[in-house]
Amino acid sequence: MWTEMNEMIQTILNHRSIRSFEDKPLTEEQISVIVQSAQAAATSSFVQAYSIIGIKDPSKKEKLAELAGNQAYVSKNGHFFVFCLDLHRLELAGRMEGLSGEDAKETLTSTEMFMVGVIDATLAAQNAVMAAESMGLGVCYIGGIRNHLELVSELLKTPSRVVPLFGLCVGYPADHSDKKPRLPQMNIYHEDEYNQDTDQFIDQLEQYNAEISTYYASRTNGKRNDRWTEGMARFLKNPKRLYIKDYLEKIELPLK
Amino acid sequence: MWTEMNEMIQTILNHRSIRSFEDKPLTEEQISVIVQSAQAAATSSFVQAYSIIGIKDPSKKEKLAELAGNQAYVSKNGHFFVFCLDLHRLELAGRMEGLSGEDAKETLTSTEMFMVGVIDATLAAQNAVMAAESMGLGVCYIGGIRNHLELVSELLKTPSRVVPLFGLCVGYPADHSDKKPRLPQMNIYHEDEYNQDTDQFIDQLEQYNAEISTYYASRTNGKRNDRWTEGMARFLKNPKRLYIKDYLEKIELPLK
Repeated sequence: MWTEMNEMIQTILNHRSIRSFEDKPLTEEQISVIVQSAQAAATSSFVQAYSIIGIKDPSKKEKLAELAGNQAYVSKNGHFFVFCLDLHRLELAGRMEGLSGEDAKETLTSTEMFMVGVIDATLAAQNAVMAAESMGLGVCYIGGIRNHLELVSELLKTPSRVVPLFGLCVGYPADHSDKKPRLPQMNIYHEDEYNQDTDQFIDQLEQYNAEISTYYASRTNGKRNDRWTEGMARFLKNPKRLYIKDYLEKIELPLK
Repeated sequence: MWTEMNEMIQTILNHRSIRSFEDKPLTEEQISVIVQSAQAAATSSFVQAYSIIGIKDPSKKEKLAELAGNQAYVSKNGHFFVFCLDLHRLELAGRMEGLSGEDAKETLTSTEMFMVGVIDATLAAQNAVMAAESMGLGVCYIGGIRNHLELVSELLKTPSRVVPLFGLCVGYPADHSDKKPRLPQMNIYHEDEYNQDTDQFIDQLEQYNAEISTYYASRTNGKRNDRWTEGMARFLKNPKRLYIKDYLEKIELPLK
């Protein structure tokens, strides 16, 4: 046992995605604590370039579940949050100080600014996850809302320069899911420089493939036994959401 | 006092950036627990599209401190991590399954894939932060490494399709810093749809401006009292890192 283990690290290491929730809504206090925790995360240059939309309206939740690829748990949970990159507020802050749209445009449309917004929103989201899990709640991130950003944006009435990045289901867990083994630590963690020894890298991935194959087989009574690299090849062969660059241009984020 | 308060949420809410550390390196065990915590974060489609480079070499740390804009704490800390978006591993996984570069290219160069990588790396980083803070360590994110990505990449020997996104200083705190007040919760958190009532938004920001102005004044004996929107206007008027889009093209991430 590590000497550095504590309750928080145990909660972190115990993370798994929950895809079935009890029919019990979060309280206003739980929602507020989760949002406050999100806001406590670091933010680049203090810009706080994100917004969070909490969805209670059952018809909106159902519509989102459908848009995300018919994932029932998007509508059936304790609460559904949508984390958005938000440069609309930043633009407004500039206008309050007399900046014209033209003055602000170069910053707002830069790839750097886009990265800052994605990073800010994601730091906030992961804090929300930790807060929720520490309360005994389960969570599941929903990237599927990026399947149809135009429709999601219409539904949530997001203005220009606001991008719904992902959803987050939160609620009381109604299923038990297993922890998926992660890549070998030495494949993720490099010391002083990136390890470009491809042979060693491949060896590590082969070991990981065996581990993942066993993991799937034991969960499905042998029906499924795919390797990690096999799943990744499938992922690569099926390009997804290729409309996003054009969509970003339409909402005045041309990524210059 | 909230009924939902617990130790983990207290740690989350207590976050502040630490910019001065004791001269005491992290142990191997601490580093390993932090990396393992990072790896426990959720990952989109199980791609785990990130790598972490830990820097021990003092000359590399000094060079990074210089590149990040002469921030001394980048070299003087307990450990320095660099979180990278990593699509190199994913490409290699595809090759191991017989995919050609051409087969994988459309996915690898999409804006969607870039977002997935930034999100994956950031989820991992925030878990690392939580683990570190739960051990009594302090942290500071360093976006400044994006000032000179070409030189950072050369120093860390990152291959194509790996982007150093930000650094993270971790160590034993040697200063006391204050918690910076965040935007009013109702300015960040919307219910069911994005609140487009601009007048209300501006009122909230004016209140926040007063709070931030008081915060700066009390910390600087009145020498500084800028409003939040004032800082944001300055930020907007000085576009930064406009080379990033071209740099991404050079490392085979043209963001299509």
